[in-house]
Amino acid sequence: MQIIHYLSARKLKIMEKVKVIEIKKSIFEENGREADELRAELKKKGVFLLNLMSSPGSGKTTTLIATINAIKDKIKVAVMEADIDSDVDAIKIKEATGIESIQLHTGGMCHLDAEMTRQGLDNLSEGLDLAILENVGNLVCPAEFDTGAVRNAMILSVPEGHDKPLKYPLMFSICDVVLINKTDVLPYFDFDMDKCREYIAMRNPAAKVFPICARTGEGVDSFANWLLEEVALWKN
Amino acid sequence: MQIIHYLSARKLKIMEKVKVIEIKKSIFEENGREADELRAELKKKGVFLLNLMSSPGSGKTTTLIATINAIKDKIKVAVMEADIDSDVDAIKIKEATGIESIQLHTGGMCHLDAEMTRQGLDNLSEGLDLAILENVGNLVCPAEFDTGAVRNAMILSVPEGHDKPLKYPLMFSICDVVLINKTDVLPYFDFDMDKCREYIAMRNPAAKVFPICARTGEGVDSFANWLLEEVALWKN
Repeated sequence: MQIIHYLSARKLKIMEKVKVIEIKKSIFEENGREADELRAELKKKGVFLLNLMSSPGSGKTTTLIATINAIKDKIKVAVMEADIDSDVDAIKIKEATGIESIQLHTGGMCHLDAEMTRQGLDNLSEGLDLAILENVGNLVCPAEFDTGAVRNAMILSVPEGHDKPLKYPLMFSICDVVLINKTDVLPYFDFDMDKCREYIAMRNPAAKVFPICARTGEGVDSFANWLLEEVALWKN
Repeated sequence: MQIIHYLSARKLKIMEKVKVIEIKKSIFEENGREADELRAELKKKGVFLLNLMSSPGSGKTTTLIATINAIKDKIKVAVMEADIDSDVDAIKIKEATGIESIQLHTGGMCHLDAEMTRQGLDNLSEGLDLAILENVGNLVCPAEFDTGAVRNAMILSVPEGHDKPLKYPLMFSICDVVLINKTDVLPYFDFDMDKCREYIAMRNPAAKVFPICARTGEGVDSFANWLLEEVALWKN
């Protein structure tokens, strides 16, 4: 009820068009096998699944909006917004990009696994090139569950500090891409970009690092181009 | 091994004095009962336990240093730093405050429960007035487990955004205190303090809210005074 409090009439209209899925807890014990099966199915269908993770408030939704607007004329994209509660992100994506966007409610759960991701994918349209999962804001648990994604990406924002790869090793080690967001506020924080790259490389020497500012769009094109290349490779 | 890379000789000397405890997973199923028992024991001993939670990078350790330096001459304080991996926080606290500080390694676990907290408390000195637990950086899972603390506090930092009470309802509803940190960067972020207070009140009308800047010390005294009063009440 209280959510209506901060929604304009325009937003309410968009909200009516956003599907909200209440995700059920998985009954499968072998998540790894489930994830591999899901990836194989996605390969057959030619759908690339990107799993985007980060801490709360590091800018996942803003980054997605900037990225989607850079690629949506070239490929068919849809987004699944996972959240414990609230629909604000799916609405925001729909408003700002016009693409298909659904909200997944995890009912308190701190991560998504492959079966939960599949429940979301089943609610998206056919014929997609790219499905993006915005995972629950959390640097710990989502790293432990393979969602079936083709690639894992994460965002570390400048205000969080360059030492995070030391403290959340698993997350950095499983991500193919690390976006360092909010570079516009670098002058106001003690964030050492070289050290950050060094610590990321300690956890995962193969990880690609893209410094970006989702709010201004700076650096987003490099990430968007990488994503387009990966999608093209997957579909071949 | 690689940790030595960024430690000075002085830090290494302090590191030798910091106890590192490898926390074992609890075997107790009824965490609520365990937590109540621990609280009763702490009441008998006159030890106040504060559980401090937040996202990664919101400034838990810096806030603790500023708070401890404001109260350490009045009461006897010790800190337990929980982390998945790394000892940097316990060392930082010890360096900056001189008080007893131990590191709890959770071995990948995303939260602490009452039994795990007890393992930490058992390794602290006798005669404490206040024991502070810095929980794992995570806005989801730690909220689900009563640690046995007398009070729960959390930090929301300005760069994370004022909408977080909408997205992480449980964390805000179980916290007695919300510290809004990094107020020095308010001019560079779209953070609405009034809305934030309103959203916090939606989740928990009784929560106390203290805007602070741990780096400059602004506002920390108000929180420190609240904490001193709470400790005095607990010991009566």
